[in-house]
Amino acid sequence: MRKFSTFDWVPDFAKGHVKELRVRWALEEAGFPYTEWPISQEEKTSIAYRKLQPFGQVPIYEDDEVSLFESGAILLHLANQSEALMPRDVRGRARTTAWIFAAINSIEPAVAQLSEIDLFHEGAEWARLRRPGAVDRVKQRLGDLALWLGDRDYLEDRFTAGDLMMTTVLRDVRQEDVLAAFPTLQAYRARCEARPAFQKALRDHLALYAEAAE
Amino acid sequence: MRKFSTFDWVPDFAKGHVKELRVRWALEEAGFPYTEWPISQEEKTSIAYRKLQPFGQVPIYEDDEVSLFESGAILLHLANQSEALMPRDVRGRARTTAWIFAAINSIEPAVAQLSEIDLFHEGAEWARLRRPGAVDRVKQRLGDLALWLGDRDYLEDRFTAGDLMMTTVLRDVRQEDVLAAFPTLQAYRARCEARPAFQKALRDHLALYAEAAE
Repeated sequence: MRKFSTFDWVPDFAKGHVKELRVRWALEEAGFPYTEWPISQEEKTSIAYRKLQPFGQVPIYEDDEVSLFESGAILLHLANQSEALMPRDVRGRARTTAWIFAAINSIEPAVAQLSEIDLFHEGAEWARLRRPGAVDRVKQRLGDLALWLGDRDYLEDRFTAGDLMMTTVLRDVRQEDVLAAFPTLQAYRARCEARPAFQKALRDHLALYAEAAE
Repeated sequence: MRKFSTFDWVPDFAKGHVKELRVRWALEEAGFPYTEWPISQEEKTSIAYRKLQPFGQVPIYEDDEVSLFESGAILLHLANQSEALMPRDVRGRARTTAWIFAAINSIEPAVAQLSEIDLFHEGAEWARLRRPGAVDRVKQRLGDLALWLGDRDYLEDRFTAGDLMMTTVLRDVRQEDVLAAFPTLQAYRARCEARPAFQKALRDHLALYAEAAE
């Protein structure tokens, strides 16, 4: 039995952006049944939870074999079990892995820094001074990605867990004018978001917070 | 035959911190023979190199089966081939993978943001205003890591590629007073750095730049 943790409540800006969405989407692509384990914002700081997730974040993931944290690691663990997420040959596995890391390591830090400025430090003097540089950094990385993508549909020759991870990172580019500078990436993101597995995952994810609000 | 790219020249502050060191160290732990492929700072922007590394960084890695980028992906590819880097069972693989991602995703972004301030923006007004917050963020994540580590020698019950990645990230905490607040982490880093494979990798890495300077 597979289960993953999610928050039972998040502020509005986080809805549709919680990292459990990556795991939920992957489970839907693979067609694996699963259960959700909603935790409170308080529970994430408990000693019991910290033993499962040293940094107090979601998601953690458990199945009959492993207890795991870090969305990238969970994605790879699931991808090892499902050809829907990753080809079976050594090269296909390695390339999928490279794109999962590229999303998290070469693009997300720049995107997160800009989000941090806009979501948490708006009005702060350092944020005002730093923002143009932060935007330039995001644009540079997005430009590199758009150049790679060119007229491909996906990062490699088929959809993989690398596209899944990359799409969730592109969803975190909340500055519409920044993403709009790269029509290639807008189309790519829309192509991946149109997948039935993503649509179901997003719907279920958002339903969790709709219920909680009632 | 295994080979990886490295820069033929780097500024002083980058010596001992180039990400190829991760791959070099892993190859030494595994006992795999390899060759280096030094490239110039100009070459990384070439179209030919961008086809191998979309973001113009080092290392890239090639062997008979794959052409690969992202140090985390290269580490996992090598770990799949060597028990010296990762246990063979599903659980051991998954936990090693989790720690590689934790190092890159939960710790490195905070460390990199502080390094960016100290190395590239010293004297800038935004950097002066932001630095205390950036230091707090690093300390929070290091505190979480120290809590997990406790009196263990390694992140899990033996040395893995997860420790290798984590050590290189801790080496990037250049602010001695910040790391000094966590004696557990200082000892852990020293324990991993004392490994003969790391010592050889660091020596060979630095020799590259000593030669280049002559």
